[in-house]
Amino acid sequence: MSHNTFGHLFRVTTWGESHGPAIGCVIDGCPPRLALTEADIQPWLDRRKPGGSRFVTQRNESDTARILSGVFDDGPESGMGQVTTGTPISIEILNEDQRSKDYGGIARAFRPGHADYVYQEKYGVRDHRGGGRSSARETASRVAAGAVARRVLGDGVSIRAGVVQLGPHRIAPEAVDFDAVYDNPLYAASRGVVPEWETYLDGVRKAGSSIGAVVALEITGVPAGWGAPLYGKIDAELAAAMMSINAVKGVEVGAGFGAAELSGEDNADEMRLDADGRPVFLSNNAGGVLGGLSTGQPITMRVAFKPTSSILTLRQTITRDGTETDLRTKGRHDPSVALRGVPVVEAMAACVLADALLRHRAQIG
Amino acid sequence: MSHNTFGHLFRVTTWGESHGPAIGCVIDGCPPRLALTEADIQPWLDRRKPGGSRFVTQRNESDTARILSGVFDDGPESGMGQVTTGTPISIEILNEDQRSKDYGGIARAFRPGHADYVYQEKYGVRDHRGGGRSSARETASRVAAGAVARRVLGDGVSIRAGVVQLGPHRIAPEAVDFDAVYDNPLYAASRGVVPEWETYLDGVRKAGSSIGAVVALEITGVPAGWGAPLYGKIDAELAAAMMSINAVKGVEVGAGFGAAELSGEDNADEMRLDADGRPVFLSNNAGGVLGGLSTGQPITMRVAFKPTSSILTLRQTITRDGTETDLRTKGRHDPSVALRGVPVVEAMAACVLADALLRHRAQIG
Amino acid sequence: MSHNTFGHLFRVTTWGESHGPAIGCVIDGCPPRLALTEADIQPWLDRRKPGGSRFVTQRNESDTARILSGVFDDGPESGMGQVTTGTPISIEILNEDQRSKDYGGIARAFRPGHADYVYQEKYGVRDHRGGGRSSARETASRVAAGAVARRVLGDGVSIRAGVVQLGPHRIAPEAVDFDAVYDNPLYAASRGVVPEWETYLDGVRKAGSSIGAVVALEITGVPAGWGAPLYGKIDAELAAAMMSINAVKGVEVGAGFGAAELSGEDNADEMRLDADGRPVFLSNNAGGVLGGLSTGQPITMRVAFKPTSSILTLRQTITRDGTETDLRTKGRHDPSVALRGVPVVEAMAACVLADALLRHRAQIG
Amino acid sequence: MSHNTFGHLFRVTTWGESHGPAIGCVIDGCPPRLALTEADIQPWLDRRKPGGSRFVTQRNESDTARILSGVFDDGPESGMGQVTTGTPISIEILNEDQRSKDYGGIARAFRPGHADYVYQEKYGVRDHRGGGRSSARETASRVAAGAVARRVLGDGVSIRAGVVQLGPHRIAPEAVDFDAVYDNPLYAASRGVVPEWETYLDGVRKAGSSIGAVVALEITGVPAGWGAPLYGKIDAELAAAMMSINAVKGVEVGAGFGAAELSGEDNADEMRLDADGRPVFLSNNAGGVLGGLSTGQPITMRVAFKPTSSILTLRQTITRDGTETDLRTKGRHDPSVALRGVPVVEAMAACVLADALLRHRAQIG
Repeated sequence: MSHNTFGHLFRVTTWGESHGPAIGCVIDGCPPRLALTEADIQPWLDRRKPGGSRFVTQRNESDTARILSGVFDDGPESGMGQVTTGTPISIEILNEDQRSKDYGGIARAFRPGHADYVYQEKYGVRDHRGGGRSSARETASRVAAGAVARRVLGDGVSIRAGVVQLGPHRIAPEAVDFDAVYDNPLYAASRGVVPEWETYLDGVRKAGSSIGAVVALEITGVPAGWGAPLYGKIDAELAAAMMSINAVKGVEVGAGFGAAELSGEDNADEMRLDADGRPVFLSNNAGGVLGGLSTGQPITMRVAFKPTSSILTLRQTITRDGTETDLRTKGRHDPSVALRGVPVVEAMAACVLADALLRHRAQIG
Repeated sequence: MSHNTFGHLFRVTTWGESHGPAIGCVIDGCPPRLALTEADIQPWLDRRKPGGSRFVTQRNESDTARILSGVFDDGPESGMGQVTTGTPISIEILNEDQRSKDYGGIARAFRPGHADYVYQEKYGVRDHRGGGRSSARETASRVAAGAVARRVLGDGVSIRAGVVQLGPHRIAPEAVDFDAVYDNPLYAASRGVVPEWETYLDGVRKAGSSIGAVVALEITGVPAGWGAPLYGKIDAELAAAMMSINAVKGVEVGAGFGAAELSGEDNADEMRLDADGRPVFLSNNAGGVLGGLSTGQPITMRVAFKPTSSILTLRQTITRDGTETDLRTKGRHDPSVALRGVPVVEAMAACVLADALLRHRAQIG
Repeated sequence: MSHNTFGHLFRVTTWGESHGPAIGCVIDGCPPRLALTEADIQPWLDRRKPGGSRFVTQRNESDTARILSGVFDDGPESGMGQVTTGTPISIEILNEDQRSKDYGGIARAFRPGHADYVYQEKYGVRDHRGGGRSSARETASRVAAGAVARRVLGDGVSIRAGVVQLGPHRIAPEAVDFDAVYDNPLYAASRGVVPEWETYLDGVRKAGSSIGAVVALEITGVPAGWGAPLYGKIDAELAAAMMSINAVKGVEVGAGFGAAELSGEDNADEMRLDADGRPVFLSNNAGGVLGGLSTGQPITMRVAFKPTSSILTLRQTITRDGTETDLRTKGRHDPSVALRGVPVVEAMAACVLADALLRHRAQIG
Repeated sequence: MSHNTFGHLFRVTTWGESHGPAIGCVIDGCPPRLALTEADIQPWLDRRKPGGSRFVTQRNESDTARILSGVFDDGPESGMGQVTTGTPISIEILNEDQRSKDYGGIARAFRPGHADYVYQEKYGVRDHRGGGRSSARETASRVAAGAVARRVLGDGVSIRAGVVQLGPHRIAPEAVDFDAVYDNPLYAASRGVVPEWETYLDGVRKAGSSIGAVVALEITGVPAGWGAPLYGKIDAELAAAMMSINAVKGVEVGAGFGAAELSGEDNADEMRLDADGRPVFLSNNAGGVLGGLSTGQPITMRVAFKPTSSILTLRQTITRDGTETDLRTKGRHDPSVALRGVPVVEAMAACVLADALLRHRAQIG
């Protein structure tokens, strides 16, 4: 991870600003002969797309991905259909609804909680329209890359995320049901909480406010041994990938911060053999990772999102020109940015794992 | 971060196993003409050294760092003394107390909570003596590198960490005092808690058990603008660096997981101008990072450590040969691995920041 | 350099195939606040553009570069005009003249001298249309990136190349005149040779044949000290950059292969002080590089191109299906691929130097 | 390749100065379970060792490699002996004969042809003893790494180099015999030339002079498809690796600079099927590389070395303090640095290929 590229062998470079002509990504290092068309990417983008419910920004984007390179259909004889060729896959998504007038007011004043001030300090210039490069819009490129990463991983690896805490409301660990996530507009990992959460988030939304949330992630099907000690630990790479998502402020693996209160007896997962003589763990406080390598158990993480910084309440701030002012962030926003963060969390996990698979194969064969 | 190297421009590669002849690191990319002798490194190593109190492993190591390259004293006329030359700095620390007989029993059985099983699965062979490469002993190399990183950063940047939670015992945020950390054998960030914590940890130790902990980190003196969007975010790099430390299971920045319960009004830090017309934030929920760039405020993180996995209680496990067994991990161990993790957390932060400084200077000038 | 990306801090990723919808590049790490519009890029592309004379392929492409991200015009008040913002610069060039029917015959048979066979062997699939990814068309992206790199370097650094040998015809070192290069359709570094070379190359072209050539490169204005020992030597990076250009088979610096015949007395460049007391070299056999670092003298290289592999003569080859066949490569081709290689050599040099500048600044300040 | 590290997955970092306590390297990413002891490394180092004949420097070094990490012998039951473990392999070579007094005179004056001046300009300080970091002594680390790389490649890949031109004396291509190389003190790739070359080089040596040379390299056993377009071309990586060796000024692949004089008909290697129906090339002007990918033919390169810059003749130069002076480089030197460059060329090739193998396996499986 460096600048605008992440991954070592399955490597994704993203580009584009919220209100420029387009955003996109280039995926390099993808293995060849994987079936890949735009139809493999679009469903994942649709899950992240704005405008789907009253709980997400009303920006009007079709988020249509176009593949510009790296795939080829060698004709019916080949029996392969359109597949990856091993060369860079360039994916482009046009920005259709740019309404930059909505954002005119923020050209000068720094929106509290946003990256406006630090971009100006670092670069001495910034594309302020809709947050420019730091807009959550960039995450569409990640989701497109994640769709390709899933092709690399194949069906044996399952990556699922969902909201397990919305402000003060939590889903008990034993009630988490990832099957529910894309059935409800809150991306909640439980059908039971939806009515109550809808009422709650409607209140937040109508107040022009916003609220934080926690997204849980569960990855199954990863065999023991992926990752690389000591500075390529799979949990360290997953943590960095999650922290690179807008608004994320915390990451934990397995028992996470709860492990700080555990004794050695309670924490370390004991092992036995199953009926077929295969190693099994009797618990999973490790969250599927020991010493930075996968254990073969589910990899479990939790990711904390701060509330959307754009709210309707007047807030104190300063301008680029060094004067104090008060600012109300108009425009179209998500009352909880974590919701559409769910497919992004999944996508980043997919990319990290695809990279880990290739690196494992390189060293181990 | 990849394999056994971390950093992009200030780049550290570590090597060595717990019971081999030595461990060490190579630091590449260090700016030239920085004063550097072994005396600049040793005090930091001494803080991490085993054997200092009854709360840390009794392994007997002097942890003496020797610089083998990358420094030069061009004589009295130069007026510089011994300085870095801009070439790779190789630092070596001999392993003195290797007593591998203590560990003979674990050659076959996988210690629960340790990386034994996954190393065997990944590599098909492992140096089992004392945990080999996955031993916490490797962190001595990190601390040595951190001492060099501090030279790069200069005195303007202060990096301090300390234990703020030991099992169920917590230090209130307002009571945290990093000046206290190296005055007490618990690395506690408050003098007041020491007597109670000593009693508590003595109990854990005498029971042959262990306990988790949380380490807080505070970095001051970093100007606004360090870091690089979007996959070189300074908090993502710090998170990965922390997660790469043995036993770490969670990382949070600023309000962290607490941000999930905050409203947009409460979370986003408002801005004003100070008496000198300089921008100031009225709070620091961001933990000194917005959009992956430093804000100029203190960077604050919290790092969760799991309990030491080596305990005296008999635990269920399996052997390399596929049989079930019960194992008691003898040897010399820390009742809470987080304690000696404090200087390691500081060192990793220093390395990440030195790298960020160089990268910022490269792009911005 | 790795996969489809080159550079460390000024980093260029290219994508696209000869007959896909478009080609392009993403430039990451560019410093902010550099004036950059499409008009800064287009003139360089025009120098490489097909169709300009009878000595280059008649493929009909406007090669119009469009910047999709990474630049911003903050309005008249800013006084800057459109500038780089420090975020990734995505540049796209549409493929307009794709006539893939011309290439239908090569879907199965491997063209001798081309990469068809090895792509098929490596990937098991390839976009055979016009050579796909291995087409010289990709070099348009390099030229676009080179234009941005020149902005980073500023006017103080001059990078000029030209053809100094065309088949058996050579320009004497003392007659080389880089000012002549873009004045003649042969990119020859001497006006005097043009009539003779035109007659010669017309003969080659009419025979449906092709011929190799040597391109000389001269870079002035680089101060002493750029580059990084030992594996970031500036000549090693330039060599790799040149060898990454299609059809390049050799690279030499300064005296190059001629140095193999020199004695130590004749080779090593002696030093004196000039009238202003500044160091000067009395010769430049080093080609401006010692120990991998620039000396402050002109950096001089020579780059050997093989002849275009596509010729009208029937050649023996095999097919993908494992049968022998004879093949005549129809289509539109350059009689000497080195000619349009001249702006590509310049562009690659510009990118390597921009990267070296940023890296030097990072370590040295 | 960057700073002091080369390779992507098989990654070598070297450290150390000519007259410091030691030099060494860390090899990261090596596959596990490869047999490796010091006895596998020493023979290669012995080939590069000083003091072996009157044609190489009389510096007295045993060049004994010691492996400090990354290998393990799991006992007789394992049946493996000492093998790599997949963790970093640290190799150290002590500097035994440092006689820095010999070099005292060059602390101030810059030796013509050496890197003294540019190191001083770049870093503002340099370890001048014996050339410090830029000494050819560093290449011992490369040779050690190359020995490990050969283990990764296995016996199927053969890498051989030898001197084919010494000053004005050349070995005809058809007379090149790599079996002869280590049988004669000139590393000549032909037994027939040895007497004449010995007389010639004795003359050079006795005159206190030096002479340049060309080393040829031939690699067999690499299957078709290694390398990665477009910026990871195997010939570009080999070229960079060769150019990173001290004193190298030129590199060519296959027909190399000769290709500039070839027509398309003469240059492109035609293909046929052999008796077993396998693809064969009818010539090898490509030098085993097309489009940056290996073709399955022998990879052939030629590497030009400049003469040793240290000679006994008085030469004009300047001092660090900005005065003119004349300098005679005393000390112990090789009359042709290319001779001991032969095992270094082989080692660098081995490292590049080991890296290419791992990267190929990662993407293709």
